[in-house]
Amino acid sequence: MRIAIDAMGGDYAPDEIIAGAIESIEKLDKGDAVILVGPAGVIEEKIGAKNLRKYGDMLQIVDAPEVIDMNESPIEALRKKKRSSISIMTKLAADGQADAVISAGNTGACVAACQMRMRNIEGVNRPGIAVVFPTFEGPVTVCDVGANIACKPVNFYQYAVMATMYSKHVLGIENPRVGVMSIGEEDAKGNEIVKKSRELIKSDKNINFIGNIEGRDIFKGKCDVAVSDGFVGNVVLKLTEGLVDGLFKVIKHELMQESLLLAMKFKPIMMKMYQKYDYHEYGGAPLLGVNGTAVICHGSSKVRTIRNAVMMSRKFHNQKINEKIKEYLSTTNVRGTDE
Amino acid sequence: MRIAIDAMGGDYAPDEIIAGAIESIEKLDKGDAVILVGPAGVIEEKIGAKNLRKYGDMLQIVDAPEVIDMNESPIEALRKKKRSSISIMTKLAADGQADAVISAGNTGACVAACQMRMRNIEGVNRPGIAVVFPTFEGPVTVCDVGANIACKPVNFYQYAVMATMYSKHVLGIENPRVGVMSIGEEDAKGNEIVKKSRELIKSDKNINFIGNIEGRDIFKGKCDVAVSDGFVGNVVLKLTEGLVDGLFKVIKHELMQESLLLAMKFKPIMMKMYQKYDYHEYGGAPLLGVNGTAVICHGSSKVRTIRNAVMMSRKFHNQKINEKIKEYLSTTNVRGTDE
Repeated sequence: MRIAIDAMGGDYAPDEIIAGAIESIEKLDKGDAVILVGPAGVIEEKIGAKNLRKYGDMLQIVDAPEVIDMNESPIEALRKKKRSSISIMTKLAADGQADAVISAGNTGACVAACQMRMRNIEGVNRPGIAVVFPTFEGPVTVCDVGANIACKPVNFYQYAVMATMYSKHVLGIENPRVGVMSIGEEDAKGNEIVKKSRELIKSDKNINFIGNIEGRDIFKGKCDVAVSDGFVGNVVLKLTEGLVDGLFKVIKHELMQESLLLAMKFKPIMMKMYQKYDYHEYGGAPLLGVNGTAVICHGSSKVRTIRNAVMMSRKFHNQKINEKIKEYLSTTNVRGTDE
Repeated sequence: MRIAIDAMGGDYAPDEIIAGAIESIEKLDKGDAVILVGPAGVIEEKIGAKNLRKYGDMLQIVDAPEVIDMNESPIEALRKKKRSSISIMTKLAADGQADAVISAGNTGACVAACQMRMRNIEGVNRPGIAVVFPTFEGPVTVCDVGANIACKPVNFYQYAVMATMYSKHVLGIENPRVGVMSIGEEDAKGNEIVKKSRELIKSDKNINFIGNIEGRDIFKGKCDVAVSDGFVGNVVLKLTEGLVDGLFKVIKHELMQESLLLAMKFKPIMMKMYQKYDYHEYGGAPLLGVNGTAVICHGSSKVRTIRNAVMMSRKFHNQKINEKIKEYLSTTNVRGTDE
C-alpha cells in the first residue's frame, strides 16, 4: 500500500508531519510505502541522507513546490496552485499511484481536491467528513463535520450508511446505533430537512437507527454514529474542542487557587486523560464517499496524529470500506426523493 | 413587582419550585409579590399555614388545576389544557396581573403560551431564548437556543439587538461583542442564511459586531453575545451540558483509578466549580422579544435556580429591557429584506 502524505499541511508542517511519516514506516509491511508530497529539497533535507538510505523504497518523495495556506479560499487556491502539495497528492491517488492520501492542511481545499480528482464512490452524492469523538462510553462517529453544509435528506441517509460501515469495520463496533442530530427525542422535533432525513434513514431496516439524538447524547453512550449536516457537525466539533480546553483551564485555575501541590498531582492525570480521550488518537477524519482513502487531519497535528492517521488509512483500505459502501448502496431500495 | 411562577414545571416540581419561590421573597421589596400558579390545594399544603401567615400578600396563589407534561406536544397541550399552570401564568401577565413569568416546565409550551398571550414587543418578528454560558472568560449570551428553528436574517439581527441589551443592562457588560455562529472566521464561511444575517448585522454600526465565530470561540473570551438559529443554538446548549457531565465522569474515573485520596481531595473543588460555572447560577433564560418578562428555567431546576430566576426577572424588569429593545428597533434603519 502506498500512502501519500501532504508534507506541508498543518500548523507544525513540515517537521512534525515528516517525523510522523517516518515513524509510521516502522509499522508498515514490506512493499508498503510512504510518499511525502511537497518541495523536494525541503523534504530531503528534513529527512536526512541517513533515513533516506535506511528506508529506501518505503520512503518516497514527490515534488510539489507550492503550498496552499490554511486560510486561503479553497477553490481559488486549487485553481491557482496546480503544483501545490494538496493538488499533487490527490492527483497521485487519481492516477493510481497512491492508495491513500493524508493531509493536515487547508480542510476545504483538501475536500475539494479529493472530490475533483478522486471523484465519488458510485452511488454517493456528496462525501462527508467523519470525526470520531472518543467518549467515556466509547468512540462516537459524527458525520458530516464540514464537507457539506447544505445537506439534503439523501446525504444524511448516505452518511448513516457510510459512517455505519466505518464504525463497524474500522472501529470494530458490532451493530452501530445511528442517531440523527436534532433538538429533542420526539419524532416531531427538528427542522424539515432533519425530519425528512429521519424518515429516509428509518425506511432502511438494515440500519440500526435509534431516531433523534440531542447534543448531550453524544457523550452519554446513546449512539455510536451521529449524522448531521456539515454546519451543525462543524459547530459540534469545534465547540467540543473549545469547551474541553476551557474546562481544563478552569480546573487548573481552581486547583492552583486551592493548592499548588494538588494542582501538580492532578497534572499527570490530566495528561493521561488528554492522551486517552484526545481525537489525535484516532489520527484523522476519513472523507467518506470519495473513491479512495482520504484522511483529513486536524491543523494542530503532530507526530502521533500522523502516525495514527497512517494506521487508520491502512485499516480503511484493507477493510475495503469503499467497496462495502458501494455494494450497500447498489442493493438498497432507499432513494432520496429530491435527488 | 408581581412575579408569577409555574409551581408545577420541572423535574423537581412542585417542592423545589415552591421552596425556591419562598426563599426568593426574602430578597424582594415591600409591595412585591410572588404568585405561585398551580393546583391551589397542593400549593397551600406545601407552603404550610405558617409561611402563608408570615409572608401575607407577598406570597399569593392562583389556582390552575391542570399540568402540562414535559413531553407533551406544546400546541396541542395548550389547546387542551386551558387551565394549566403555564396557560394561566401567561394569562396573568397578559391581563396585567403579573409583571414577570417564570417556568421550568415544558419549554415549547411555555414559549408558545408567552407568544400567544403576551404577544411580541413592537418591532420584533420572533422571540428568542437567550442562555448565558458561564465561561472562564466571563458570561456569554447565546440566542436563540430553541424558540425559532427556521430563522430568517431579520431574526438573527433582532437577536443581536436584544441579546446586546440583555448582556449590557442585565449582565453589566460595557459594549458587548456580538458574533454570529458559523464554521470559520472568514466572511465566505457559513450557509446562505448565516451569510445574509452577517451582512444585516454588520450594516448596523451601533452593534459591536465581530463577524463569524466558531463553536470553540464561545469559551475563549472572543465574544459576549453569540447569535444563531434555534436549531444550532439548542445543539450547542445540550452538547455543552452533556460534555461537561461526560468530562467530569472521565476525570472522576481516572482519579479513582489513580488514588482514592486524590479523588476525594478533588471532589470539593469540583463542586465549587460546578457552583461557579453552572448555568443554574443565572437562574434561567429570558425569552427575549415577548411583551413582558418571561424566564424559562431548565427542567432540572431546584431551589437555587428559581431564586436566581426571580432575581434575574427583577433586574430584567427594572432595567426596562423591553422598552430599550422597542426604542432601539423603532429608530434603526436596518430592515430585513425578506420580511
